Amino acid sequence: MTVNYATPAPDALFPVAGVRLGVAEAGIRKAGRRDLTLLVLDPGCTVAGVFTQNRFCAAPVQLCRRHLASGSEIRALVINTGNANAGTGEPGLRAAQQTCDAVGQLLGITSSQVLPLSTGVILEPLPVDRLIAGLPRCAEDLRADHWHAAAHAIMTTDTVAKVASRQLVINGGTVTISGMSKGAGMIRPNMATMLGFVATDAGVAEPLLRQLAAGAADESFNCITVDGDTSTNDSFIVIASGQSGVRFAAADAPGYAELRAAISGVALELAQAIIRDGEGATKFITIAVEGGRDRGECKRVGYAIGHSPLVKTAFFASDPNLGRILAAIGYADVDALDVDQVRVWLGSCGEEVLVAENGGRAAAYHEEAGARIMQAAEISVRIDLGRGAATAKVYSCDFSYDYVKINADYRS
Amino acid sequence: MTVNYATPAPDALFPVAGVRLGVAEAGIRKAGRRDLTLLVLDPGCTVAGVFTQNRFCAAPVQLCRRHLASGSEIRALVINTGNANAGTGEPGLRAAQQTCDAVGQLLGITSSQVLPLSTGVILEPLPVDRLIAGLPRCAEDLRADHWHAAAHAIMTTDTVAKVASRQLVINGGTVTISGMSKGAGMIRPNMATMLGFVATDAGVAEPLLRQLAAGAADESFNCITVDGDTSTNDSFIVIASGQSGVRFAAADAPGYAELRAAISGVALELAQAIIRDGEGATKFITIAVEGGRDRGECKRVGYAIGHSPLVKTAFFASDPNLGRILAAIGYADVDALDVDQVRVWLGSCGEEVLVAENGGRAAAYHEEAGARIMQAAEISVRIDLGRGAATAKVYSCDFSYDYVKINADYRS
Repeated sequence: MTVNYATPAPDALFPVAGVRLGVAEAGIRKAGRRDLTLLVLDPGCTVAGVFTQNRFCAAPVQLCRRHLASGSEIRALVINTGNANAGTGEPGLRAAQQTCDAVGQLLGITSSQVLPLSTGVILEPLPVDRLIAGLPRCAEDLRADHWHAAAHAIMTTDTVAKVASRQLVINGGTVTISGMSKGAGMIRPNMATMLGFVATDAGVAEPLLRQLAAGAADESFNCITVDGDTSTNDSFIVIASGQSGVRFAAADAPGYAELRAAISGVALELAQAIIRDGEGATKFITIAVEGGRDRGECKRVGYAIGHSPLVKTAFFASDPNLGRILAAIGYADVDALDVDQVRVWLGSCGEEVLVAENGGRAAAYHEEAGARIMQAAEISVRIDLGRGAATAKVYSCDFSYDYVKINADYRS
Repeated sequence: MTVNYATPAPDALFPVAGVRLGVAEAGIRKAGRRDLTLLVLDPGCTVAGVFTQNRFCAAPVQLCRRHLASGSEIRALVINTGNANAGTGEPGLRAAQQTCDAVGQLLGITSSQVLPLSTGVILEPLPVDRLIAGLPRCAEDLRADHWHAAAHAIMTTDTVAKVASRQLVINGGTVTISGMSKGAGMIRPNMATMLGFVATDAGVAEPLLRQLAAGAADESFNCITVDGDTSTNDSFIVIASGQSGVRFAAADAPGYAELRAAISGVALELAQAIIRDGEGATKFITIAVEGGRDRGECKRVGYAIGHSPLVKTAFFASDPNLGRILAAIGYADVDALDVDQVRVWLGSCGEEVLVAENGGRAAAYHEEAGARIMQAAEISVRIDLGRGAATAKVYSCDFSYDYVKINADYRS
């Protein structure tokens, strides 16, 4: 079950010139499912990545960082599901390296032009032979209109494939942006992870693309939480092929702000789709924090609410439990917070109600209004900290019996 | 249901000379239950307190801080359950003040010699008239051997009353320590809170008692987590009456280390009892972190594991899910952690097994050993960070269907 998300039809996804995708059944963990994906990029693409901050970062993440830093022109991405190749030590690094070597050999490029990405079970050796054996079938399957198939092939325990796509006219040229993501928690039940990919046929110079990727991640994949568990494999990759002819070398170039907004928008759609497919989720919750001194403290408040099991179970119960929300704001580590300045609103379906002010319940608030709002599947919590101009949004879901069931039953 | 905790019988609790307790039914929230407790201290006691860091700290917590800082000799504590007097703004502060005034009038002391403590529903006005009306009945009930009754009267949704008591001989004199606590989560279902009280008939000079209280809290109430939610009312109070004749003025006095250890021990027993009565808990988990550069990073690692819903649901399922534990260590924000140096052991019933080393699964580890350990009701996770000599312990419980049930159903 998802909260207001359905996978768009294959023909709703625009191909991105310069990017081809192919999938295969490699039998990484289970037979009979597509679990291996190859993205092949034409020469001239720029690529940027944002990766997990987890110290136990997976072997493929380490190689991605190394290959992006090497200055090699990235020409291929290879993505397997079923095994995260995380917590696998030195042998795991060798397996990721062998994967890149094999892709390089198959496509006639060097290993350092390949980004490897893995998702699935942690602490199991990657079955690298089966992976490599599947690569030629991926290569035969390469097509620009295979985003839909690829989005399915990167799923682990996701219940739906997650894709987003749009076209817009910038500087007189039509620019296409398509992307896909996977994940139903920041870390999956013994599964890792969140993966996100966005490609555009706009051209973006590499230093600029790195900034763009970091900014888009900051407003999308780095603003979501299912359970607060940061995985070992989280990766977000942005590809710019330039084949639309619309190209950017500097942040102040005309039209660049539009491109950046569109790519961030696609990333946000993909990130929100992960929450809508969150483990056991029945509600989609937007926590908008404003009036902070800096974005960091706004995010801390958003995450304190978004992570609190007590707040999340109250949302599950459609209970407008203000005490839990105020308590979470209070322990979010905001320096010298004056709680008398804090105001909180609950909203859904275009209605918004002031529920707390002056350190307590708002004078005009009646619980029936809160209870009505909490019935909706999409709920917003807006907080004004009343001490500055910074803002942040965090996206979360509720906490249900099914979350416990999914995570307690996974290995049995 | 609790994990290996049963309330000791009333006669297993030693009275503390200089401290009398009385309880009454004041009808704060529900009729027919004891919900008001008065502790009256003889002249000559010293008192120290440690309180919540939550910015939305409750009105009684604010008055406690003020009265302790004023230098007044504390002569009484008044504790109500059923209402936390938190998120109640200016009227809440007035209600707490009126409570202290009434106790002062009843006992012939000043308001600032009274510490008020409240626990229960947040955001509801305190029914201060009913509270005050109940005080004379508390005063009639005052007895030194009423710890058992008081421990019951401070419960909210606790399933058992929590007490601990011991006697020891220090410097040739018999010293008694008794205490009580309440709480089944860091914050309760719309209920606040953790409260802890320890009294001794040893004498401890006030500056020394403040250090002792802070140290005892750091190793007990500040090392436990059910759900990571820090409440608005958490308070821990230590009382030293001096009536045993064994008195201490300096930390290096002979016998003081024994007293400190004994008081910390009682505090730890009371804190662990809160976890053993944790909402929906079926397992008691000790997370021992060693080899850190400082205690702060050890605590961060302990809490990352202790808070992770994924780790907690795995414990509920008796699943030795190492990937989730390693991932939590990895995101615990330990600066420049070398994961190859980290070792992890799982233990129960006197058995301990090395499960992870060199960035992955330990070579000799077999999952049957982990699965056997996870069946126990008391489980230890020991982590050596391999980078220093600091240590910390965190106590946690698992995460079950009942946690969601208790917290989602509370208000319905």
